Amino acid sequence: MIYFHNDYSEGCHPKVLERITATNMEQTPGYGEDLYCLQAAQRIRTLCGNEKVAVHFLVGGTQANLTVIAAALRPHQAALGPAGAHINVHETGAVEATGHKVLSVPSTDGKITAQQVRSVVMAHRASASFEHEAQPKLVYISNPTEYGTLYKLSDLQALSDTCRELGLYLFMDGARLGYGLAASDNDITMPDIARLCDVFYIGGTKVGALFGEAVVISNPAIQEDFRYLIKQHGGMLAKGRLLGLQFSALMEDNLYFEIASHAVRLADQIRATLDKIGVPYLVPGTTNQIFPILPDSFLEELGKNYMFTEMKRVDGDHRAIRLCTSWATTQQNTDALCRELERIAAL
Amino acid sequence: MIYFHNDYSEGCHPKVLERITATNMEQTPGYGEDLYCLQAAQRIRTLCGNEKVAVHFLVGGTQANLTVIAAALRPHQAALGPAGAHINVHETGAVEATGHKVLSVPSTDGKITAQQVRSVVMAHRASASFEHEAQPKLVYISNPTEYGTLYKLSDLQALSDTCRELGLYLFMDGARLGYGLAASDNDITMPDIARLCDVFYIGGTKVGALFGEAVVISNPAIQEDFRYLIKQHGGMLAKGRLLGLQFSALMEDNLYFEIASHAVRLADQIRATLDKIGVPYLVPGTTNQIFPILPDSFLEELGKNYMFTEMKRVDGDHRAIRLCTSWATTQQNTDALCRELERIAAL
Amino acid sequence: MIYFHNDYSEGCHPKVLERITATNMEQTPGYGEDLYCLQAAQRIRTLCGNEKVAVHFLVGGTQANLTVIAAALRPHQAALGPAGAHINVHETGAVEATGHKVLSVPSTDGKITAQQVRSVVMAHRASASFEHEAQPKLVYISNPTEYGTLYKLSDLQALSDTCRELGLYLFMDGARLGYGLAASDNDITMPDIARLCDVFYIGGTKVGALFGEAVVISNPAIQEDFRYLIKQHGGMLAKGRLLGLQFSALMEDNLYFEIASHAVRLADQIRATLDKIGVPYLVPGTTNQIFPILPDSFLEELGKNYMFTEMKRVDGDHRAIRLCTSWATTQQNTDALCRELERIAAL
Amino acid sequence: MIYFHNDYSEGCHPKVLERITATNMEQTPGYGEDLYCLQAAQRIRTLCGNEKVAVHFLVGGTQANLTVIAAALRPHQAALGPAGAHINVHETGAVEATGHKVLSVPSTDGKITAQQVRSVVMAHRASASFEHEAQPKLVYISNPTEYGTLYKLSDLQALSDTCRELGLYLFMDGARLGYGLAASDNDITMPDIARLCDVFYIGGTKVGALFGEAVVISNPAIQEDFRYLIKQHGGMLAKGRLLGLQFSALMEDNLYFEIASHAVRLADQIRATLDKIGVPYLVPGTTNQIFPILPDSFLEELGKNYMFTEMKRVDGDHRAIRLCTSWATTQQNTDALCRELERIAAL
Repeated sequence: MIYFHNDYSEGCHPKVLERITATNMEQTPGYGEDLYCLQAAQRIRTLCGNEKVAVHFLVGGTQANLTVIAAALRPHQAALGPAGAHINVHETGAVEATGHKVLSVPSTDGKITAQQVRSVVMAHRASASFEHEAQPKLVYISNPTEYGTLYKLSDLQALSDTCRELGLYLFMDGARLGYGLAASDNDITMPDIARLCDVFYIGGTKVGALFGEAVVISNPAIQEDFRYLIKQHGGMLAKGRLLGLQFSALMEDNLYFEIASHAVRLADQIRATLDKIGVPYLVPGTTNQIFPILPDSFLEELGKNYMFTEMKRVDGDHRAIRLCTSWATTQQNTDALCRELERIAAL
Repeated sequence: MIYFHNDYSEGCHPKVLERITATNMEQTPGYGEDLYCLQAAQRIRTLCGNEKVAVHFLVGGTQANLTVIAAALRPHQAALGPAGAHINVHETGAVEATGHKVLSVPSTDGKITAQQVRSVVMAHRASASFEHEAQPKLVYISNPTEYGTLYKLSDLQALSDTCRELGLYLFMDGARLGYGLAASDNDITMPDIARLCDVFYIGGTKVGALFGEAVVISNPAIQEDFRYLIKQHGGMLAKGRLLGLQFSALMEDNLYFEIASHAVRLADQIRATLDKIGVPYLVPGTTNQIFPILPDSFLEELGKNYMFTEMKRVDGDHRAIRLCTSWATTQQNTDALCRELERIAAL
Repeated sequence: MIYFHNDYSEGCHPKVLERITATNMEQTPGYGEDLYCLQAAQRIRTLCGNEKVAVHFLVGGTQANLTVIAAALRPHQAALGPAGAHINVHETGAVEATGHKVLSVPSTDGKITAQQVRSVVMAHRASASFEHEAQPKLVYISNPTEYGTLYKLSDLQALSDTCRELGLYLFMDGARLGYGLAASDNDITMPDIARLCDVFYIGGTKVGALFGEAVVISNPAIQEDFRYLIKQHGGMLAKGRLLGLQFSALMEDNLYFEIASHAVRLADQIRATLDKIGVPYLVPGTTNQIFPILPDSFLEELGKNYMFTEMKRVDGDHRAIRLCTSWATTQQNTDALCRELERIAAL
Repeated sequence: MIYFHNDYSEGCHPKVLERITATNMEQTPGYGEDLYCLQAAQRIRTLCGNEKVAVHFLVGGTQANLTVIAAALRPHQAALGPAGAHINVHETGAVEATGHKVLSVPSTDGKITAQQVRSVVMAHRASASFEHEAQPKLVYISNPTEYGTLYKLSDLQALSDTCRELGLYLFMDGARLGYGLAASDNDITMPDIARLCDVFYIGGTKVGALFGEAVVISNPAIQEDFRYLIKQHGGMLAKGRLLGLQFSALMEDNLYFEIASHAVRLADQIRATLDKIGVPYLVPGTTNQIFPILPDSFLEELGKNYMFTEMKRVDGDHRAIRLCTSWATTQQNTDALCRELERIAAL
């Protein structure tokens, strides 16, 4: 059985493991105050082209989301995102457990537009009973989204402008950020993100680390006392250096971007094969996630040797699935998958 | 200016005020442990035909909703209701502030069906990542709904059966319960509600009291330690007797039902006038709330002397509004309103 | 049985009831946006000598405490008060239910000193692991305290100076504020309180109202969006005018201060009697609360006709109790109590 | 500089790292549903002598504490522990952030007695206003405690009996459990703990793992839906296998207990040296933590080459410090420390 169903099936990139192994018996201060964390943070500040951003390392995405949102909002304020936002549907109400409502707008591609943000905020402010509604204060986006789509620089600029005009925070969940930056049609850079968002994170768990997300905070209001929030939510790792070591390795010699490019190149190869055999997509994309719509009989055959994620039934005899590549996907397995797709298509 | 825009513009029914006045200088124990509270609770148990229900008096609807939901749910559990549910859109995220997500299903008439409940619960349980989603555990309904619609006994029976089969609680927000029970097409009784719901409340604020909702709890799991929850949420009135006195008066000699019938009779008169002049409704109804769709010019004229609530724009030159009667609405004002509606229609 | 055990046994002052009665059938806007609330707020601003304070009316003390604290603090911040603070021991963890720790310092008289505040804050800031501790951010005081003691102007000035120097908020719970201001040795005025505290409230429930506390907010950071917080915690009364009417009546013609003086004068009479018969106090005081230490046999006799509150056992055959007067206490009952105290003492 | 100031300065035991390395490129299911987690859980069940306990792996101690307490309590319920409990003073109000009060009783050695539990619970139940206080429902103990002290089997039996009689949960924080079980005067076994506690955890972070705590739940009420709670609090590691791999390695061939014994043996050697030179202790102990009281001049000299933790000033020229050994401490460094202690003592 070969896994193409997600991007977190293996451990970590060998260079990351090597760093952990090489330093294993070193003695360092705890709780993220070691030199490796400082080094990794500095590398990220340099990549962002901004020496004033604060960088914190958290263990996982849900933890990063809930900690950032708890740090940013007053009790009556809400996060606003697309209907399928990870915080809205896949985190067991983690944001609500910190006391905040998640507001959502319709979206078929996982994105939210500046105009949607403006409409929600304006409707709220125009309401005769606005104080009876949660106040939208933070816009949550994922880039890439859950559907593998990307924000263009112009989208992000518009969202940022709108948020600043209206006094909202813009927060980007970058759990798969590397795969987005490596996509062929991406036009956004790390300095763009650091400049346009109030806070975002660089996903490690899905892009070469054992675990870990690097939260980058541009807005001083969210920077303040952030480490208290991490500790309060159980996110302050005693051996915080493990996060520093991993991000230090990933951010060295362009490793993070190289392994992301590797995954995207393999995904492009799979897309080319699917295109060749005329397969439609639930949502088209250019990152490491692919959402083909295939006949049930095709999937039954494919499922004999390949693991994929079920997305949804599209019609009586077609389902959309997800195929993922990652830093760990091999050329060999990708070739085999492509041959298998062609073989089944030819049946 | 005559107010028809809501059902809480005046103080309270004279008999309620009389009771408060008559007992003003009596000395009683605090925090709802006085004889008036005991008396009112007993009257409600008798009306419910069930000596085992617990009865607690809270100051308002949002307070009742958040306290009941906090008492009923474990942290990962969610309340499920129609999209426009009061807890979902008009309570500033009060339920989320107690840590719980509010899940919703589409609804145009303010109601949710047993089938919708089953679908949501089944989809949750069938999900490969169900533990990554909030767990639906309590169904929140309003009767009458925000749109003045009513559940039929068969609807309520089906909801109750489904909830019990699936292990969910059924909670009825009865902020306007009196006006529902008094409606011409209502076929539900207080004993039905007490039997079919795990918890519900009898609204006083909108039906003759200065303030107050009587929470009736059938399910022992929610009964347990409920007074702690009231206190924790700031809902335990030092002079709790005020609530007992009011409900004791309302539940005496059928007063609650008489004043509700009075309001509904006047609403029926307004509906008859609207029907006569051929006005359509946003949602048809039989309770004290009426949602006519009227031309902008008509509303401009009507607004000169009558206060109503804006609901939504229906098309380029029509809006839906809400007109409410209440225990306090007079025959005289109703006659005047009807004459005015006919006069404007004839312009 | 005559009640001297608390100051909330009766309804409200006749002039308050008269106002509610006189306006009962008036139609007003809901949720505290009526003219009576505006009028009452203006009277309070005038009493505070400060046109910039925000005034909001809440139903009760626990509600006021939790709403103010939720409005003022970020998630990792704590309220700091004396060990016996009402928020620490008598509100079922209401503050914790909003997510905040209550820190406490030892106190035998219910007060906290500027030096204690400074010590806690300095110890926190000097800690090597300060981010692992809740951050003290708000100082909670009651005036009068639970033990009937009062802050002197110099105490309050020192607390305020210390809080401002250290960046903390100062919050005064004034559930019995009237009785404090009326005490013979009080040297604090309403303008002092408004000037020195960031937020405080003027208790109505125990000083002539049916219910209600007027929250006065000087600090703009706490003023912001406060009505959202009220609604979120279920504290926004639909018929908010009831609060406006009551405070409007209480703040008219010095009524609030007159009825408080009445209660204090009667308490002084009881204290004089106790002094005459040589009774010691758990904590000496000058407000409407008295804490005599009496022999068990004395209390057994007294308890036959008078209700008092048990405070604590002092030794093998003495207990401390609480006797309260209030706006509602009569001269006649006070005379009777004094005679009874003297009679029992003479046995 | 040699670190003796805590037990989490290094990475992990070589056998743990070897397991992570050997399996690095294996593909496994995520979120703790892999075979390594199953294997580790089964080893722990076997060690507990109880096939019915549930075992979950969390990343750290604060996360474990807050998740267990959130799973166990209803909103009005509180955790009860000794005054210096980790949850009370070193977790930034993490428990309060889940809505619960932490109640405490005085303790000088970090322990709480069955009699203290009984007194608190009885006082609560006897209170005239019990519903105005948070309800004690869970007893939190650490074993070893923060002061390196241990519960005897008879202590634990008494606590367990009292908790069961009174309807409370007993929860043991075992962040350093291995070092407790390895102590010379320990008389408690894993099956005892599993039998007497409702829930406890086996600390990995401080005992040979990179990170991780194995939560063992005996009580079915806390077992229910526990994975939802983990996810909601951001504790569900995508690559959950990392926790399974580590605990599987630690629980194989007695490794966990061997490395704990190693640390305790070295701590005993340090204690023998301190005893020889006549040093008193803040709290005597037998685990891997040592709390000697030493003159300032002695500490100045010691601090030139050895890192220790400051505990508190004892008098004008003495301070108590903490020295820790761990699975990673070498015989060589221990010998060097002992020689240094003797050298300074002889100055």
